[in-house]
Amino acid sequence: MSKIRDVASHAGVSTSTVSNVLNGRGNRMTKETLARVEAAIAELKYRPNSTARQLKTGHTPVLGLLVPSIANPMYGFIAREIETLAQERYGFRIMIGNTYRDKDKEARFFDDLMSHGVRGVIIISSLIDEQHFESAGERGQVVVSYDRRATPGVESGIDHVSVDNFEAARQATAHLIEKGHTRLAFVSAAGMTMSRREKINGFMAAAASAGLAASTQVIEGTPLNEYGDSMMSELGRIEAVALAGRKGSERPTGIVAVNDMMALGLMAGFREAGLSVPADVSVVGIDDVFLSALMHPALTTVRLPVPEMAHTIVERVMSRLADPAIPTGEFMFQPTLMVRASVAAPGRKSKRPPVKFLSKVFE
Amino acid sequence: MSKIRDVASHAGVSTSTVSNVLNGRGNRMTKETLARVEAAIAELKYRPNSTARQLKTGHTPVLGLLVPSIANPMYGFIAREIETLAQERYGFRIMIGNTYRDKDKEARFFDDLMSHGVRGVIIISSLIDEQHFESAGERGQVVVSYDRRATPGVESGIDHVSVDNFEAARQATAHLIEKGHTRLAFVSAAGMTMSRREKINGFMAAAASAGLAASTQVIEGTPLNEYGDSMMSELGRIEAVALAGRKGSERPTGIVAVNDMMALGLMAGFREAGLSVPADVSVVGIDDVFLSALMHPALTTVRLPVPEMAHTIVERVMSRLADPAIPTGEFMFQPTLMVRASVAAPGRKSKRPPVKFLSKVFE
Repeated sequence: MSKIRDVASHAGVSTSTVSNVLNGRGNRMTKETLARVEAAIAELKYRPNSTARQLKTGHTPVLGLLVPSIANPMYGFIAREIETLAQERYGFRIMIGNTYRDKDKEARFFDDLMSHGVRGVIIISSLIDEQHFESAGERGQVVVSYDRRATPGVESGIDHVSVDNFEAARQATAHLIEKGHTRLAFVSAAGMTMSRREKINGFMAAAASAGLAASTQVIEGTPLNEYGDSMMSELGRIEAVALAGRKGSERPTGIVAVNDMMALGLMAGFREAGLSVPADVSVVGIDDVFLSALMHPALTTVRLPVPEMAHTIVERVMSRLADPAIPTGEFMFQPTLMVRASVAAPGRKSKRPPVKFLSKVFE
Repeated sequence: MSKIRDVASHAGVSTSTVSNVLNGRGNRMTKETLARVEAAIAELKYRPNSTARQLKTGHTPVLGLLVPSIANPMYGFIAREIETLAQERYGFRIMIGNTYRDKDKEARFFDDLMSHGVRGVIIISSLIDEQHFESAGERGQVVVSYDRRATPGVESGIDHVSVDNFEAARQATAHLIEKGHTRLAFVSAAGMTMSRREKINGFMAAAASAGLAASTQVIEGTPLNEYGDSMMSELGRIEAVALAGRKGSERPTGIVAVNDMMALGLMAGFREAGLSVPADVSVVGIDDVFLSALMHPALTTVRLPVPEMAHTIVERVMSRLADPAIPTGEFMFQPTLMVRASVAAPGRKSKRPPVKFLSKVFE
């Protein structure tokens, strides 16, 4: 088995240079030196012993990744991107924890990471109170938060990477208004998070600027404790059946869902209740999970730039692990409206005549 | 900070009893003792230092979990169940790796786990050659494989937990035959895995027993290297468009998809090509991911008992970590057909008359 000394002599550098590469501090040398060391590591199949290394450096090449629920396809997508980048670019592995947006579970995960010597942590949590993450930062952990903006006016010891959630909901709402909808609803789950609040603000702003505030409502839905976001679609189904039961003139015709999982549930629920999407009711999602394009009708939604955000998340955590003096920051990405087939102009509220079925079939 | 001695004296047991609890050997004592130690740990907020513990015991309370791609909702579901059980029941964390069914990536993940002191590994991989997993077993790692059966006649150092894939495909196929389909196809991705082979055998057996072998085909599709199973739906879409282009009498009317992601892609592709599911073509999946019930039409599929299988996986790895003398075994679970709306009796191949649309709408 090769030793670090063999790698150093093979690459013609000192052992401390090799050690810098192994510990994610490749940015301290020229590109040529870095390439030479990496080639030597590969050629000699050098594998550092992580436990020994951890005792020496005080940390281990592992990142913690905290998600509400990995069963949610959106978080699965982000997790895959993060793990692949961390592994292929830095040789770091990922320790994952499902927290179901529970603050105690989040805190326990942080404690466990600390005891495993894991200093870099990526959190997907948009709980409004993030004091427990700030404390982790104060204990020397490098924390990058995804899905929520920094609290305005508060100096933060952690990075925040997110999409512009206000803008995402604004775009979705503006699209419905453009198609002629005047009775609008935003459907969420009970329990306020930072990203939900931003989305509701974006929704309300778009409605207000079109003079529609009076015919606009936010439906918070029932709480979903047990399974975080993975049951979001089930909640959507329930809310759709409730909405379909309202009298025609009290029923919103244009709906913005808090995310795609909710939107898919809403579409299934409306169908169950005998309403057609988009002939009777239009639905717009937020996320663009890969399944949304496969729906029938294909879901109109607002796409989040997941690969780009994952890239920034991994780069931030790695560079701050290498140099704790780098100041933290806020990184906000812009979403893109994906127009598909779940939005149409609002239709008549009366029973549909047979001729309508025919025209639908040929569309 | 509490020490192990404090916990022992609080619970009125020896430190080695506490140590047994901490190292997953709670089964060596009475339930009452276990409960008393756990209560003392909780009350004193005792947190063992994992690095020190690892040096002493030679392993760390972490399990490795190797998945083809966590972006596939089915693997996300299984991963969530495994992580939650391992964490809540044993205090173990999960280190995860996406391997895209690549043997080199799988082997590298095992090496990294070894260097992190991780001895328990759960693998989701049904590559036919599992020699690299057997070697891990020989090096002292405890390996539980999900999704493939043991190789017949070969003594194995690893546990195998799987659904009866032969039976899953047999049930799906028998359901199509029962509805009157005679031109059947099984649609898979290129590249043979153990579970795909079992499914194809089950499909062929059902067709043969109904005397339909001659009008039955297996479509392997194009290879999917880059993204493992997450792009399976994309492949389904492509295959559906190709199938829809065939002359009526050469087109299968009843299709079994290798899994639900493939089935969802097939349904979207048929729609794109102007065919209606199930009026023109029937589709059955295998898996029952939570999204399948939300499809339009809702997908008829064969459900895998994921929570039960996850339970067995975690119990096997934990008990063999505690006692390496326990012999390995094969654990096979039975699937259940979920009849929904994507299968109907085969229709006419001619252009559909308007009356058909009307009857469809009112069904």
